[in-house]
Amino acid sequence: MMNVQLTVPSMMERAEKLFGKKEVVSKSSKGIQRLTYNQLIKRTRQLSSMLERIGVKRGERVGTFAWNHHKHLEAYFAVPGIGAVLHTINIRLDSEQIVYIINHARDKVILLDECFLPLFESIHQKLPHVEAYIIMSDEDKLPETDLPVYHYENWIQQGHASHSFVQDLNEEEPAGLCYTSATTGEPKGVVYSHRAIYLHCMALGLADSAGLSEADTAMPIVPMFHVNAWGIPFAAVWFGTKLVLPGAFCTSETIASLIEQEKVTLAAAVPTVWLNFLQEIEKRPYAVDSLRAILCGGSAAPKSVIREFQEKYQIEFMHAYGMTETSPVVTVSRLKSYQYSEDFEYQLNVKAKQGFLVPGVEMKVIGQNGEIAWDGVEMGELLLKGPWVASEYYKDKRTEDTFKDGWLYTGDIVTVDEEGTIKIVDRTKDLIKSGGEWISSVDLENALIAHEAVFEACVIAVPHKMWQERPIACVVLKDAYKGIVSSEELLEFLALQFAKWWLPDDILFMDEIPKTTVGKFLKRTLREQVLNHYQKG
Amino acid sequence: MMNVQLTVPSMMERAEKLFGKKEVVSKSSKGIQRLTYNQLIKRTRQLSSMLERIGVKRGERVGTFAWNHHKHLEAYFAVPGIGAVLHTINIRLDSEQIVYIINHARDKVILLDECFLPLFESIHQKLPHVEAYIIMSDEDKLPETDLPVYHYENWIQQGHASHSFVQDLNEEEPAGLCYTSATTGEPKGVVYSHRAIYLHCMALGLADSAGLSEADTAMPIVPMFHVNAWGIPFAAVWFGTKLVLPGAFCTSETIASLIEQEKVTLAAAVPTVWLNFLQEIEKRPYAVDSLRAILCGGSAAPKSVIREFQEKYQIEFMHAYGMTETSPVVTVSRLKSYQYSEDFEYQLNVKAKQGFLVPGVEMKVIGQNGEIAWDGVEMGELLLKGPWVASEYYKDKRTEDTFKDGWLYTGDIVTVDEEGTIKIVDRTKDLIKSGGEWISSVDLENALIAHEAVFEACVIAVPHKMWQERPIACVVLKDAYKGIVSSEELLEFLALQFAKWWLPDDILFMDEIPKTTVGKFLKRTLREQVLNHYQKG
Repeated sequence: MMNVQLTVPSMMERAEKLFGKKEVVSKSSKGIQRLTYNQLIKRTRQLSSMLERIGVKRGERVGTFAWNHHKHLEAYFAVPGIGAVLHTINIRLDSEQIVYIINHARDKVILLDECFLPLFESIHQKLPHVEAYIIMSDEDKLPETDLPVYHYENWIQQGHASHSFVQDLNEEEPAGLCYTSATTGEPKGVVYSHRAIYLHCMALGLADSAGLSEADTAMPIVPMFHVNAWGIPFAAVWFGTKLVLPGAFCTSETIASLIEQEKVTLAAAVPTVWLNFLQEIEKRPYAVDSLRAILCGGSAAPKSVIREFQEKYQIEFMHAYGMTETSPVVTVSRLKSYQYSEDFEYQLNVKAKQGFLVPGVEMKVIGQNGEIAWDGVEMGELLLKGPWVASEYYKDKRTEDTFKDGWLYTGDIVTVDEEGTIKIVDRTKDLIKSGGEWISSVDLENALIAHEAVFEACVIAVPHKMWQERPIACVVLKDAYKGIVSSEELLEFLALQFAKWWLPDDILFMDEIPKTTVGKFLKRTLREQVLNHYQKG
Repeated sequence: MMNVQLTVPSMMERAEKLFGKKEVVSKSSKGIQRLTYNQLIKRTRQLSSMLERIGVKRGERVGTFAWNHHKHLEAYFAVPGIGAVLHTINIRLDSEQIVYIINHARDKVILLDECFLPLFESIHQKLPHVEAYIIMSDEDKLPETDLPVYHYENWIQQGHASHSFVQDLNEEEPAGLCYTSATTGEPKGVVYSHRAIYLHCMALGLADSAGLSEADTAMPIVPMFHVNAWGIPFAAVWFGTKLVLPGAFCTSETIASLIEQEKVTLAAAVPTVWLNFLQEIEKRPYAVDSLRAILCGGSAAPKSVIREFQEKYQIEFMHAYGMTETSPVVTVSRLKSYQYSEDFEYQLNVKAKQGFLVPGVEMKVIGQNGEIAWDGVEMGELLLKGPWVASEYYKDKRTEDTFKDGWLYTGDIVTVDEEGTIKIVDRTKDLIKSGGEWISSVDLENALIAHEAVFEACVIAVPHKMWQERPIACVVLKDAYKGIVSSEELLEFLALQFAKWWLPDDILFMDEIPKTTVGKFLKRTLREQVLNHYQKG
């Protein structure tokens, strides 16, 4: 067979030949912009020629610091198109982390939205490798600045609209780079090869995964700085799918309006977005029946959200699981055909899990005694392998903690049922190891949160002489229940669902639970607080 | 990213873990057999362990000479599963060609249906490399024979149901081999790598091509000795699709009955099969509404057939184009979403063409003045490139005629319209080069056959002093019109549709047109007959 390499530029070249009339809709501060693929691809070629002209070489990193819009999409293809590496920087990191990853990646050029110019003015002195900033501005002129800047629009006009993408790419060459924020220490980089992006896009187009198609209108709400917006921008261009890019500071109102106006058929975002979206469309009527499916990942969606999409709006809710290290899609929660005849509650339970492996990815789940039984009960750490799964962190010694014997150790604790459907039950580090058995902190938290009095619940492990570790629950009560509901009552409530040895040794009531900037529980901090509390007490 | 190889055994391993309950339905002389994937995969592992035990080594060829049934499917995975090469032999070749390809491939073992035993008894002396025949019999005992035979069922029972497939395969290693019958000379072999089969299967699963899914019930009517039954058996197992294998000497009645009984959703075959199928379901009522689509390739289907499927039965008719050298799928005729609003006749015209490229394959069309315009008029030879396109014929000097500068020269003359949709208009060798312009013999033939008096029409080129070549039409009239319709009348009929210089210089009436054993016109023989006719005349 021919030695044809699987590369990102070949994907755009297909769109150029077959789907020139199709459209990209991009929301900016000036309103909606519409470009045909023909226009978009000419601009992409212009951008790639200008990046070469200012000296970006094959293998070098070009950073982006931007929301979801067409200029960012142009960078998605222009950077790999010259053989350079698209480094999408998470705009939500704190400035120290941003400095760290730009220096660690040695970004030579950064493309950024104008709103982030002040941030870069404040950190530029700490970025010795950055030679130029290309400002993806919606205005005709840039504000005064001391930084070495170019105005994206004016600048790319000097480029060649028929500039050739690099032709001798090897599919193993790097095309993308994304850093995942570690809970401890600095962010860790994951490099995506052309091959990985290409194969991952194929997986997105499979009828049995997202089934992304030319006939779709796809809206990635998930930011383009999060694992390539789950690969959707790449795949959409390849398949000739109409793309809707919702721009900066995207609200539920914007999302609902765009779905209505552009007849979006497939949209992708984290659970919180979908929760807020449901509230928005309850409040005001929008025509959202164009949506054939939504893709939801990042964390587990509450069953109530899935129920509402499926039951009230007849919109297919596709739970997916993945991580920065896996490009990201690993599993999609689709029913098997022999489950079509099961009742709604059964199907809802299937869809509330994370799904089974898409073609291409392999897994192994290791519990306390080796590979676990697929019984939906036994717990183990999920190990992954596949052509779009990373094998290392970019220039990072922490590689050896996570990548072992050819497998990625995800740090996620899962159960697997008879159908091979996985359910995330905890993170390795949050799991409570009690007397040789494992207790899922997440299961206990979910049970507590279902009690009418509970506003927030966080379960942590504390050391125990005899049992090694025991669970302690920290609970924030709703105001109306404060001082009324006792820990005994909550323990009795839990006892209805769990074996006795699962029940927390204590339930501590608190005013708030410490959280990260993105709202995740800071379990490590909480653990210290709790231990202090017991030492004092 | 991980160095994970794209291999055939990994596809079956996925089915084993996720789709053990799904079913393979196989028609044999004893009636319908049903196996779960669990059973099928155990048997496949048994077969692979026995093939190893009798000494089949990695890279060696194992021939199959069989219809579409579950044992053949087991061989599809067991042979690549030990790193050997599955050589599917076309049972319709004449015995000399069969001897040639078995010797050329150096098949070490051949798995064959019992009905072909007499054939192999007659040629065995000419096959010095074949050490054993495994008879895939439906009977308990084999007939007496002098050949070194094993009874498939009894034999595999000695194998290990948990035998491991080879684990260190490189995706570039050969997995399959299929010979294409050349119109002149000996058949030419095409070797399929694991990577090519894997990627081709992914393409079959894309929502925008065949969209093969777990929810489908797929029936490859196309023989498993024709380009791996277009890849469907491989893909179906990978995706967990229920498979229906229609067995030997499959009639229209069998096809219609199986579709009805097994609720087939996707079936694949050449146009003649679909033409006969339509006649069958006109004659007798069958419930065929489970069919969501049919896949049709091998040659162009008449528009009337497409019309009937789409209009009368609301079954999606998917024309596909490919060849042995391309695994085979290269294009699928699907509407683009902006064509959904066009009227039925417009859509029918799109679907009557061969479609546009599936993701992964590239093309170039070379006419008389380099690359042709995409105007639906200019003609050129179709050149292909892609990860599942061959780069050579197996140990064959004729490689250099067909594979040049990294492209496969298909020998097919096509037009390409503004949408990138290709239409096959001729074979290179049948094209008529007249005065520096090209005339499509196929277009003239199709026009003639549309005349009520014409039963068959074949247009060939004859040498011409001034114009280099000129077309001559050979026509067989329907009995009722013999002696009634004149060549002038047919020429006038053609003049309504074609420019004057396209019209044949002569129309010769004949009693029959010489054909190959599979019913294709023998244009070379006809050309000699015609030249003799003019020399005598």
